[in-house]
Amino acid sequence: MKVSVGRKAHFNAAHRLFNPLWDEEKNTRIFGKCASPNFHGHNYLLEVWVTGEVNPDTGFVMDTSYLKELIKTQIEDRFDHKNLNLDTDEFAKLNPTVENICVVIWRILRSQIPENLMLRVRLYETERNVAEYAGD
Amino acid sequence: MKVSVGRKAHFNAAHRLFNPLWDEEKNTRIFGKCASPNFHGHNYLLEVWVTGEVNPDTGFVMDTSYLKELIKTQIEDRFDHKNLNLDTDEFAKLNPTVENICVVIWRILRSQIPENLMLRVRLYETERNVAEYAGD
Amino acid sequence: MKVSVGRKAHFNAAHRLFNPLWDEEKNTRIFGKCASPNFHGHNYLLEVWVTGEVNPDTGFVMDTSYLKELIKTQIEDRFDHKNLNLDTDEFAKLNPTVENICVVIWRILRSQIPENLMLRVRLYETERNVAEYAGD
Amino acid sequence: MKVSVGRKAHFNAAHRLFNPLWDEEKNTRIFGKCASPNFHGHNYLLEVWVTGEVNPDTGFVMDTSYLKELIKTQIEDRFDHKNLNLDTDEFAKLNPTVENICVVIWRILRSQIPENLMLRVRLYETERNVAEYAGD
Amino acid sequence: MKVSVGRKAHFNAAHRLFNPLWDEEKNTRIFGKCASPNFHGHNYLLEVWVTGEVNPDTGFVMDTSYLKELIKTQIEDRFDHKNLNLDTDEFAKLNPTVENICVVIWRILRSQIPENLMLRVRLYETERNVAEYAGD
Amino acid sequence: MKVSVGRKAHFNAAHRLFNPLWDEEKNTRIFGKCASPNFHGHNYLLEVWVTGEVNPDTGFVMDTSYLKELIKTQIEDRFDHKNLNLDTDEFAKLNPTVENICVVIWRILRSQIPENLMLRVRLYETERNVAEYAGD
Repeated sequence: MKVSVGRKAHFNAAHRLFNPLWDEEKNTRIFGKCASPNFHGHNYLLEVWVTGEVNPDTGFVMDTSYLKELIKTQIEDRFDHKNLNLDTDEFAKLNPTVENICVVIWRILRSQIPENLMLRVRLYETERNVAEYAGD
Repeated sequence: MKVSVGRKAHFNAAHRLFNPLWDEEKNTRIFGKCASPNFHGHNYLLEVWVTGEVNPDTGFVMDTSYLKELIKTQIEDRFDHKNLNLDTDEFAKLNPTVENICVVIWRILRSQIPENLMLRVRLYETERNVAEYAGD
Repeated sequence: MKVSVGRKAHFNAAHRLFNPLWDEEKNTRIFGKCASPNFHGHNYLLEVWVTGEVNPDTGFVMDTSYLKELIKTQIEDRFDHKNLNLDTDEFAKLNPTVENICVVIWRILRSQIPENLMLRVRLYETERNVAEYAGD
Repeated sequence: MKVSVGRKAHFNAAHRLFNPLWDEEKNTRIFGKCASPNFHGHNYLLEVWVTGEVNPDTGFVMDTSYLKELIKTQIEDRFDHKNLNLDTDEFAKLNPTVENICVVIWRILRSQIPENLMLRVRLYETERNVAEYAGD
Repeated sequence: MKVSVGRKAHFNAAHRLFNPLWDEEKNTRIFGKCASPNFHGHNYLLEVWVTGEVNPDTGFVMDTSYLKELIKTQIEDRFDHKNLNLDTDEFAKLNPTVENICVVIWRILRSQIPENLMLRVRLYETERNVAEYAGD
Repeated sequence: MKVSVGRKAHFNAAHRLFNPLWDEEKNTRIFGKCASPNFHGHNYLLEVWVTGEVNPDTGFVMDTSYLKELIKTQIEDRFDHKNLNLDTDEFAKLNPTVENICVVIWRILRSQIPENLMLRVRLYETERNVAEYAGD
């Protein structure tokens, strides 16, 4: 009996979209105002979903207090109030599109969550733009 | 051509998380403030999704007025303004975690919905904590 | 590595639910107040999800600016501030239930999106009624 | 000790913006696509706020169950699933802008609510367009 | 130059509406299912607004980190995961309607906030029921 | 008969909180992680409210299409996808707290809106932090 549980969190960060192999003109042509050189930013809204068997003793798939703490220490402390391009190792060379941030968060959390649980990550960059990744 | 339709509803209930095989100390250690003995409560937000063929005469997978009424008589009338632990048969012996409530709601609705339709239930305990179940 | 990206949009339209093979009495019996002869209306909220590989040069599955423009020209310009029954070819003979509108939008967008990308469309008729279609 | 209580409700209606003293060309110039002749529609979200003393016996300014019922019988039953221009007396000759609908709703409710209570009505036509009226 | 700043918080609590001077029959007649004897509960959403001059050194009316901490220690720690009727001094003898809870929160916070700042408290019991109090 | 109309818009920007008269240590002590040197960012949600008489010919206090365009040209084009500290004249020397941004937006719009209309601006920095200004 596989049940999914989800937990929401958020972090606020600056970024710009930028491919260092392209000149400024091409970056602006491809990424529009998202390539603006001095950065802009977002309130990222994160949903983390974990799927597995319900533990009959607790009634939990995973204790959401534990999941909340995991998201805080692994994701919020890493990315909140940061410049993704300048302040993080993860996006020093990787373009911080909502797709790429979503995959990076999935990989970080995947390594922290028991293998018998499936993991799905949804990341809203704005209320209108969102990405989702659940592994391969 | 399988289409899904969803319908939202809500109910307000009290509960506590509690395993009667454990003493209070262990219940508090595992469930934290959710084990608070005099109960706390939530505005539960329910999403019920039904998937099937579109009826060519009506354009409906299922009449959402019927689905709305089904949710009212089967779920809201049973759980709204109730103490889940004390007032319901379903959670007299089952810990009312969001996972367990979600599965219980799925089973109740599953017995009321034609077999050729698939059923998925999502239940928000708060805006931040959510469970989903779609059967096995 | 398949990632999904979603984009939200909206349009405001009038409609009525109506099967021309039935008389008014039967239409009212089946569709209730949704068959009201002079139409009613909704703020439709549309979510379009595209799934595929992330382009390593851009970090995009699909440029959401392109997706936004596609939704505008193909869907919003066609349905926004229209009477779906009277002003559109798509629903001249097809009952504009949320299920049917969702499938019609999926088909319009499917023809515009590269075949290697999967497409899923979710359409909210109200905050409480929603349909989803992802093809067969 | 003046406290305010608010209650939300909603209705779905068709309308068009139109001044019968003007020709179609001027109506379109002034009202844009909102003058579209076959109507469009909205999910109207209504907030009704009542301000007054808290009754020491009940702890209520006004019983929100009563307020809910008042909104249902006076507003929802009148406007829900209607064409505001064609199906209602109130907008037979009055342009159903969000401002005018808001004032009409305030006047209907004002006549039903005790004089010692202040009344404020907020009406969302879309998530982005809203009007508010509290009397003179 | 008076500017207002607001901060949102939330707490989950059980309660019942009940006047000890009335018998159960009258409590049920007046309060309906809200008088259910074993309690029900809500996710309370709190908005605290403070109005005053902007400090030219900080650009703050009040540091929202301070306001956040004040709400946590004074309100959340007091009411979160509690039974308002049984576990709190404030509602041992006061009916925990959304109006009364809103006023109680305002009084607690008023005593903690500098006198030159105005205070307004809004409390949502559900998405549909809300109270607001700003003092006399 | 004074009616208010509101319109929502949004812009995404980077900023840091910083007083140039203080050293980094004091900036960090006062502003916490909001002083992070490489900036962070937000999805700012703007609500602009205009209050005045309803024009009997149009039923409008102000055409919200005009208000939408005014917000776009005066506010979104100025601040969207910008670094408020580095890219704007308004915050070159003014600390971009939510209070100060709200007042700046009010002043810009005030100069563009007829004097007989009252103006109120609400600005959400996050879902939890908000400021409001309506002039003196």
